[in-house]
Amino acid sequence: MKDSRLTGPIKIVGTGLIGTSIGLALKSKGLEVLLEDSSPAVLNLAIDFGAGSKFQIGTEPELVIVCTPPDVTAQVIAAELKAHPDATVTDVASVKGTVLTALHQQGIELAKYVGSHPMAGREQTGALAGRSDLFIGRPWVMTPNMQSSKESILLVESLAFDLGASLVSMDPIEHDRAVALVSHAPQIVSSLLAARLASADSSDVSLAGQGLRDTTRIAASDPKLWMQILSANSQQVSDVLRNVRNDLDQILEALQDTSKPGSLTSIGKLLESGNLGVAKIPGKHGSSATRYAKVTVMIDDKPGELARLLTEIGQIGINLEDLTLEHATGAQVGLPELYVLPSSEAELVSALTGRGWKIVG
Amino acid sequence: MKDSRLTGPIKIVGTGLIGTSIGLALKSKGLEVLLEDSSPAVLNLAIDFGAGSKFQIGTEPELVIVCTPPDVTAQVIAAELKAHPDATVTDVASVKGTVLTALHQQGIELAKYVGSHPMAGREQTGALAGRSDLFIGRPWVMTPNMQSSKESILLVESLAFDLGASLVSMDPIEHDRAVALVSHAPQIVSSLLAARLASADSSDVSLAGQGLRDTTRIAASDPKLWMQILSANSQQVSDVLRNVRNDLDQILEALQDTSKPGSLTSIGKLLESGNLGVAKIPGKHGSSATRYAKVTVMIDDKPGELARLLTEIGQIGINLEDLTLEHATGAQVGLPELYVLPSSEAELVSALTGRGWKIVG
Repeated sequence: MKDSRLTGPIKIVGTGLIGTSIGLALKSKGLEVLLEDSSPAVLNLAIDFGAGSKFQIGTEPELVIVCTPPDVTAQVIAAELKAHPDATVTDVASVKGTVLTALHQQGIELAKYVGSHPMAGREQTGALAGRSDLFIGRPWVMTPNMQSSKESILLVESLAFDLGASLVSMDPIEHDRAVALVSHAPQIVSSLLAARLASADSSDVSLAGQGLRDTTRIAASDPKLWMQILSANSQQVSDVLRNVRNDLDQILEALQDTSKPGSLTSIGKLLESGNLGVAKIPGKHGSSATRYAKVTVMIDDKPGELARLLTEIGQIGINLEDLTLEHATGAQVGLPELYVLPSSEAELVSALTGRGWKIVG
Repeated sequence: MKDSRLTGPIKIVGTGLIGTSIGLALKSKGLEVLLEDSSPAVLNLAIDFGAGSKFQIGTEPELVIVCTPPDVTAQVIAAELKAHPDATVTDVASVKGTVLTALHQQGIELAKYVGSHPMAGREQTGALAGRSDLFIGRPWVMTPNMQSSKESILLVESLAFDLGASLVSMDPIEHDRAVALVSHAPQIVSSLLAARLASADSSDVSLAGQGLRDTTRIAASDPKLWMQILSANSQQVSDVLRNVRNDLDQILEALQDTSKPGSLTSIGKLLESGNLGVAKIPGKHGSSATRYAKVTVMIDDKPGELARLLTEIGQIGINLEDLTLEHATGAQVGLPELYVLPSSEAELVSALTGRGWKIVG
């Protein structure tokens, strides 16, 4: 039974993290998902993991989703447009301008092509890191080109909708400027900081706290993938990083002599700009906060209380999507944060309140 | 009833986040905690929050812990050494060299002074952000000076022990070099990146994912506090940041023309150094992982299953310190991660296995 806007079958080329996650999500909607990968081992892993079945020549998909590494994306898109002239083709590459330029250079008719970039990922790579809920509530950027047909645009919109993503439509060049700022330059900055640790004394690094862990988390990402992304968007990334360098030069000068007039102001201004910048990021309280509704309950911090709460939620019949329990102060109170689908929030709050639980905030 | 190495009373000067957290933790051990703050409002908040009672002149503490802002730390230490000649005095300032230099300049006898720096904190400030478990499993750096008496060193060791922290002893200058690397330079780098967002289009920033959120999280920290910390450790921070700038210059040159021989290698090398750096950070899987033992259970992803699990944990009588539930793939399996005191891990695993639960990894 289908529970989707797309009708299928859907062909996914490239079964790494993103391809597998899309396959899992579309299959759970009842769609037929056909997988292809240049590596038979990678393909079989994704099939075993439940992302779809093997694509067989002769099958005509409604939509082809190209999830290959970025350096071969344009060539795979061209091949798929040729192999399936009735199908719409999209891709998930992180840089859209270079893909489009490469397609234009080949003089290919692009009415059936609409670029995509789902703003979702994990540090882990490969099929086994795939999650059917990877796209829920995350931006799915669609970058139609001048030739994209209305029909193909609607189909990619349906894909984003079926994946639970939040659709954003952008010009390919605008997209590349935006991701240089929010994704590509941050990758370099995180790597620059983490690189300082590589040659440091282990005893120094052992003092690391959560701040350093968070700041350097994405520096654990795959260098091969990122070399491709960064070279495909080098000019836009440079524009951001040159401004970072100018600010850094000012800070270095200020640190040279902090008693010099203006030095502290210069450091303070940077820190305040940082505050302002963080405040602009939407949903900054963790990924669950952006995808699910949060209900915080105040409970006694003793064995069995959380279980009693969850038992009652089970009785109410609402599925928890995520749960975090911030450990309480000496005050002997626990504040579990329950994450549920936004559509279940009101029912949960009302049912819990009716059973005497105290909802906070 | 005391459950501590210290015997008390303990005087805490400065009842912000750190002072309040220490107070909550020591009170929960049965110790008498006496609080002082230059602001009566701040002091009353900490007292109401349960961190201790008001310090009265005439009481002689065993140990004084100075938790004031860093710019007044040296002067408060000097005053406390004078006011309580029999007490040991420690402080929690993030930079130890400048504090010691200032004390030396005043020609004060320092046998009863031992510096400290607990590597724990939160972005939130103030008494109400205080947590009695803030120090559990976190490094507590003790920086004895040449004059520190053995007795005073032992007392500060007892403090770290009573707070559940993991004690590290370092020379004050070595400490300052280490924290420049793992804490102060990361603060600047995070602010440099976040500052780029301050003037950006909101629609661009709206594409932000978890990577940007994590990289910029600490850029939300208090500018006033950080101006003090950074100026107190300016030379050591500069040393780290100059190397960051040199690496950044190389990356900017490589991005200028990625087809030039050596450009991609240069970018790839930085990304790989970043990988190596992250791998050196201990306990990088989140704060709970460093403080508690983790037990992962595989459950069916349906309403009531988590509750049934937690009900049984309640029956077993073990208190959960933290719990996270990573949402499952399409595979309809949930993997709740249960965090318990390390001393309870074996009992929990054995009891759950005995009841038929599947423990993972």
